[in-house]
Amino acid sequence: MKLNNLDMDLLNSVAGMHGIPKGAVNIRRDGEAVIRQSSSNIILSSLTGNKPGLKVEIKPGTRNETVHVPVILTQPGFQDKVYNTFIVGEDADATIIAGCGIHNNSHASSRHDGIHEIIIRRGARLKYIEKHYGEGGEKAQNILNPTTIITVEKGAVAELEMVQIKGVDDTIRSTKAYVHEKGNLKIVERLLTQGEQRAESDIEIYIEGDGGAAQVLSRSVAQENSYQLFRAALIGKTACLGHVECDAIIMDNARIKSIPELMAEDAEAVLTHEAAIGKIAGEQLIKLMSLGLTEKEAVDAILEGFLK
Amino acid sequence: MKLNNLDMDLLNSVAGMHGIPKGAVNIRRDGEAVIRQSSSNIILSSLTGNKPGLKVEIKPGTRNETVHVPVILTQPGFQDKVYNTFIVGEDADATIIAGCGIHNNSHASSRHDGIHEIIIRRGARLKYIEKHYGEGGEKAQNILNPTTIITVEKGAVAELEMVQIKGVDDTIRSTKAYVHEKGNLKIVERLLTQGEQRAESDIEIYIEGDGGAAQVLSRSVAQENSYQLFRAALIGKTACLGHVECDAIIMDNARIKSIPELMAEDAEAVLTHEAAIGKIAGEQLIKLMSLGLTEKEAVDAILEGFLK
Repeated sequence: MKLNNLDMDLLNSVAGMHGIPKGAVNIRRDGEAVIRQSSSNIILSSLTGNKPGLKVEIKPGTRNETVHVPVILTQPGFQDKVYNTFIVGEDADATIIAGCGIHNNSHASSRHDGIHEIIIRRGARLKYIEKHYGEGGEKAQNILNPTTIITVEKGAVAELEMVQIKGVDDTIRSTKAYVHEKGNLKIVERLLTQGEQRAESDIEIYIEGDGGAAQVLSRSVAQENSYQLFRAALIGKTACLGHVECDAIIMDNARIKSIPELMAEDAEAVLTHEAAIGKIAGEQLIKLMSLGLTEKEAVDAILEGFLK
Repeated sequence: MKLNNLDMDLLNSVAGMHGIPKGAVNIRRDGEAVIRQSSSNIILSSLTGNKPGLKVEIKPGTRNETVHVPVILTQPGFQDKVYNTFIVGEDADATIIAGCGIHNNSHASSRHDGIHEIIIRRGARLKYIEKHYGEGGEKAQNILNPTTIITVEKGAVAELEMVQIKGVDDTIRSTKAYVHEKGNLKIVERLLTQGEQRAESDIEIYIEGDGGAAQVLSRSVAQENSYQLFRAALIGKTACLGHVECDAIIMDNARIKSIPELMAEDAEAVLTHEAAIGKIAGEQLIKLMSLGLTEKEAVDAILEGFLK
């Protein structure tokens, strides 16, 4: 048995896996692929050379298939860097379940830098889900720096859901996207920081083709002494639609900085954003407490709903 | 007669003046005060030393008085720099009408840098109106770089209306404000750029006292090849309310960049912003044209309403 209980718990947290799923799977543990299986439509192979990593090719016309590519770090103080390339073939419709879980019981820092390139070919549809999670000793430092570069080709549709569940001490999330003619990109981000954690998210979307559309929806909660910096830039180079929305709940001694950036380079570009940073609404709290919840239970319920 | 017709036209454009108003007035033309009169409650005097300029003191308890302090540049290629200090005494209620008009018929650039410090003492109320306007030959460069530093003391209320009417080729508007306990600041900005004009506006507001509030409302229109950069940062250091709203109409080959920035440093800070960049709504245009307006007339009517 290659995977122990600890491994399976991490895989469940970041990729909802209760066993090894059917279909295409690649599980990376401490820098190595411990399980790799392709399916007839989704081919997994190794990238070699300067930028070692995984290549995932989803064949054109593939229908409703899912590929799991989670990463786990269990060896204390392990430093992992990987370059992954995902190609979703023309008119394919697929789901990629990524994610990274760290278990670190040491005083050292464990770190995963995942550099993902995602290409969604003409007319294809992709749903991409990535969850980040850390656990372990109080002195451990769990660091996750995902870099994602996305190309949405003509008429393609991509939805990315990126969630930082908890236990990540330091993260710099960098996402760059290029949306071509009639392409459609939606990025949903959910983030929770606690203790002394720091999270930085930097999203840059270039809408380059006529009729392109992009949307960024970010929700975050900052508790205790944590710090969050959210920056999302929308650059409309043509007749396009773009929208950024970020809502944050701030608690305790946390600090949140939110910097959306709109750049209209064409008179037919329509770009909008909204943002709000504030505490939990008092009425919501009182309502739940009047139903018998303690204050802590009520807060937890509200945060859970907010980040869902 | 110190002021000629050209002077009066400029003064009318930037300060709505049809003659020399009663009460406190200071008219600066090409670097010199050509008219200065104090009133019993509003005392005008010269600042000397390293930072020459005008000092305006509004006595505590003053009620409903207005002071006019416009600046005009009529000498081609004139470069003017002035430091002005405005002190609104405790519990006073006053209006300051500033503004700068340039008439430049040369190939040289005329430039006015006004560095304004505005202090609104406890419980005082200030309305501050500043209009910028340039005219002259096609080869002329009219440059206006206003720097404004505002302190809103405990319980004071300040509303600033800053308008760039037209004809300003290059502007860097820099505004910094500090809002104390229960102080309230509202900044309204209106901006039109055309041709090859560039406008940069940089607003930074620190809400430092409990119960402080700040609001920035920006509306702008960018036509032809012009470029606008709008940055507004709200920093909430305490239990406070802050809101930034920016709406821009983009036309022709213009480019607009909008970067609001929210920084919550306290869990009781509530900060929000909204922004939209887009073209004139088609339905509005069609409605006005169906009432008999030409397309140009309809566009002008919509822009006028938007910037009012």
